[in-house]
Amino acid sequence: MESTRSLPIGVFDSGIGGLTVLKALAEVLPQESFLYLGDTARLPYGTKSPKSVTRYALQTTRLLVERGVKVLVIACNTATAVSLQALQEAYPQMPVIGVIRPGAQAACRASTTGRIGVIATESTVNGGSYNEEILRIHPTAQVFSRPCPLFVSLAEEGWCEGEVVELVAKQYLHSFVQDTGIDTLVLGCTHFPVLARAIGQVVGPRIALVDSAHTTAQFVYELLRKDDLGSRDQRRTLSFLATDGAERFARVGGVFMNSCLESKDIEIVDL
Amino acid sequence: MESTRSLPIGVFDSGIGGLTVLKALAEVLPQESFLYLGDTARLPYGTKSPKSVTRYALQTTRLLVERGVKVLVIACNTATAVSLQALQEAYPQMPVIGVIRPGAQAACRASTTGRIGVIATESTVNGGSYNEEILRIHPTAQVFSRPCPLFVSLAEEGWCEGEVVELVAKQYLHSFVQDTGIDTLVLGCTHFPVLARAIGQVVGPRIALVDSAHTTAQFVYELLRKDDLGSRDQRRTLSFLATDGAERFARVGGVFMNSCLESKDIEIVDL
Repeated sequence: MESTRSLPIGVFDSGIGGLTVLKALAEVLPQESFLYLGDTARLPYGTKSPKSVTRYALQTTRLLVERGVKVLVIACNTATAVSLQALQEAYPQMPVIGVIRPGAQAACRASTTGRIGVIATESTVNGGSYNEEILRIHPTAQVFSRPCPLFVSLAEEGWCEGEVVELVAKQYLHSFVQDTGIDTLVLGCTHFPVLARAIGQVVGPRIALVDSAHTTAQFVYELLRKDDLGSRDQRRTLSFLATDGAERFARVGGVFMNSCLESKDIEIVDL
Repeated sequence: MESTRSLPIGVFDSGIGGLTVLKALAEVLPQESFLYLGDTARLPYGTKSPKSVTRYALQTTRLLVERGVKVLVIACNTATAVSLQALQEAYPQMPVIGVIRPGAQAACRASTTGRIGVIATESTVNGGSYNEEILRIHPTAQVFSRPCPLFVSLAEEGWCEGEVVELVAKQYLHSFVQDTGIDTLVLGCTHFPVLARAIGQVVGPRIALVDSAHTTAQFVYELLRKDDLGSRDQRRTLSFLATDGAERFARVGGVFMNSCLESKDIEIVDL
């Protein structure tokens, strides 16, 4: 048990977007070590088929389990939407946590009218998981979804504010918000929080923006307490694995983590 | 020999951008059959490391060779930039043609001042192949490169004209064109021709836009004649393989081919 407590928490994402979730986890859990794996060789997952995404998710999880992790967080909405169940079935002994249920809970708490918008990648929207999770909690809610794939590219390019982001946000969201009358908008992709300011300006202050990173971190915090899995070590480590492109990972990842990463700190692994 | 003549021409790309090259080939070579393979499960190549791109390129080429092709066209600038030589060495009996040399030749013919711009993905720009090829032909030319990764996402999203494309083009190209004084601009990524109108409006009519698709097609036409490899069949076939997402391939591919594709016509293959 003691040895399990000392293991890091595994965090897996299609690339670097999941670092927004890692950042929230690291803040809420200052004693925990983390092992992050970004499948940068095969990103983005959001435009790929469920079958391919699940195959990739199983491969990345196997590697994290071999290295040794006590809990797995799927910090990718697409992988959560299409592969959470497959991963839970493949590793019944290990808690596997996705970002969608915590995001859905936060949205239901934030909404007073029950009209909830979800923006995400094509795969996440088509998978319908947010819809399902929100309706499980709040059966009379009305959920409206909109794929926003260009937000991913803008975030990856590091264009987080300015004229282009605002114009793209307007094209995606202006009539969507008007037509649906939502009071809450879920940022259903880990890339989107870095664009939150621009998105907020387009949708206006009366719509609550929900980011699942912080609610997921809270969820993991409670899980560790409940299962008595919290680390008692004084020093923690943050380790980064990627399947391609250490330099790009460090450069763009710095934007997401809001801190400095160096390419020598990223270990490249082959899946 | 007769049986070789009847084989299709293999065309390989990281995804669907290469369909702009296929379209040019099909127009210039109306009697030839084509077998197109888009590695949609692992696109985009443009942000990945040379080692990964070459591994993927060798896998896709092996499949095309097993199916039977008489010539291979690499319809992807990134794969040409980093993997052409590896493919030529792996298949010494088969002509392997990339898009960069034809594009460089066309640029040198179009330029009167010798000041040539190249816009492409990060990998193509970092690889420096356009630079090298242009200087081999025109040793006193000056080549200026600019990565434009968002153009790929805009084309994939089908946003080929309008305010967003123009604004992104302005941000990428306005000061680039002013500062360098180029008279020719190479569209060094197969996705870019679908944005040519918007790019042309930003750079202005005095700058010649060079698209390697047509010059590559001309190059293949001459190769078939020289090596007596031209088909004598009356009917030709166009076949499409992809590693993921038949529906998306058909939907976005239609924009690139400027014709209608149906998902049932796309065969999904595993590499």
